Amino acid sequence: MPRAVVLLSGGLDSATLLAIAREELFECYALSFDYGQLHRAELKAASVIAEVLRAKEHRVMEIPIGVLGGSALTDVSMPVPDEGGEGIPVTYVPARNTVFLSLALAWAEVLQAEAIFIGVNAIDYSGYPDCRPEFITAFQALARLATKQGVENNSVTIKAPLVDLTKAEIITRGVELGIDYSLTVSCYRADETGRACGRCDACRFRQEGFEQARLSDPTRY
Amino acid sequence: MPRAVVLLSGGLDSATLLAIAREELFECYALSFDYGQLHRAELKAASVIAEVLRAKEHRVMEIPIGVLGGSALTDVSMPVPDEGGEGIPVTYVPARNTVFLSLALAWAEVLQAEAIFIGVNAIDYSGYPDCRPEFITAFQALARLATKQGVENNSVTIKAPLVDLTKAEIITRGVELGIDYSLTVSCYRADETGRACGRCDACRFRQEGFEQARLSDPTRY
Repeated sequence: MPRAVVLLSGGLDSATLLAIAREELFECYALSFDYGQLHRAELKAASVIAEVLRAKEHRVMEIPIGVLGGSALTDVSMPVPDEGGEGIPVTYVPARNTVFLSLALAWAEVLQAEAIFIGVNAIDYSGYPDCRPEFITAFQALARLATKQGVENNSVTIKAPLVDLTKAEIITRGVELGIDYSLTVSCYRADETGRACGRCDACRFRQEGFEQARLSDPTRY
Repeated sequence: MPRAVVLLSGGLDSATLLAIAREELFECYALSFDYGQLHRAELKAASVIAEVLRAKEHRVMEIPIGVLGGSALTDVSMPVPDEGGEGIPVTYVPARNTVFLSLALAWAEVLQAEAIFIGVNAIDYSGYPDCRPEFITAFQALARLATKQGVENNSVTIKAPLVDLTKAEIITRGVELGIDYSLTVSCYRADETGRACGRCDACRFRQEGFEQARLSDPTRY
């Protein structure tokens, strides 16, 4: 059974991603990050999801990017706005997906994994630069050159199966795969129990997705 | 004064790198990593070098790549050989420079730095894939796409001024810049005090460099 490292935040997209990777018959090594995010309920959600969706292993890496500041998701002095506004919003975390993918690449190489799954989406999203398909393509090129695995064999493949789906399409796909979305936490302001604010960008995209998919939204607000 | 993040391992190359960045009139933010390396004396050396070469700040980030295994530099069960042998040697650490650069990119973005300096060298080196110029070029392309800084302004520039120098040329340059190489630790098997084994790849390249530069080698063996 080929192996895959699956980036798992604990949100709706990455839960769907893990289910897709399992359906594609990968042995899944789920990877989450404790990077100083204020919405830490997502890490508890990630553990539950990894268990329910039968990841082979779930690892939570602590990484020191939150302490650098520069994002409303890690810095209490920068409030999370109700809407992102123009341009790249303050919830952007500097170089987050580059850091996440690089650590996934390290683990994938040790595991001799064939794939890394990342749940980026460039349709119903906050406009973060590191969620775009061109970012994934550039990271794929880097991975080929950066690693022993890339030089000696074929490199690991970076898979982003959600990148051009709408949120409604992601939810529909996940429901087909049997995901219980009440287990997932998307909200940037989620409290300790995972209760969502219903007003931040992440909540709005999620709510609109359930509406457009004509499915009932199991989120606790 | 423009800012730069300078990757500083505590070895000969990165000390020279920091001196070059200072000479180019950057305000330097030195960045070291505690990644579970067994030759931890290099971290003490990095602190001293950052101080002596007047970095504005020196940060040591703890990152969990050593625990993944897969390298003689982090795993006591894999001995460091006297010579690397054919191909990419066992001292290669999976995706190390990708992880280092991605965290440097995060810090650079928060600092609004103009450059990241990395001391890779593809002449007198162990054959690691992530020391080659094509790896640096690929990371530069990624950095432009990955960050808010890259999208809204010009991206940070990845500078690798040692990449095509011989070890002797690096040492000659460093001596011109006044570096005291007795402060640096290159050895993969350095003891706690920084005393070098004199036989590993890192020691051999260093010794040959001093010989070819016709300079006395201040290393403690």
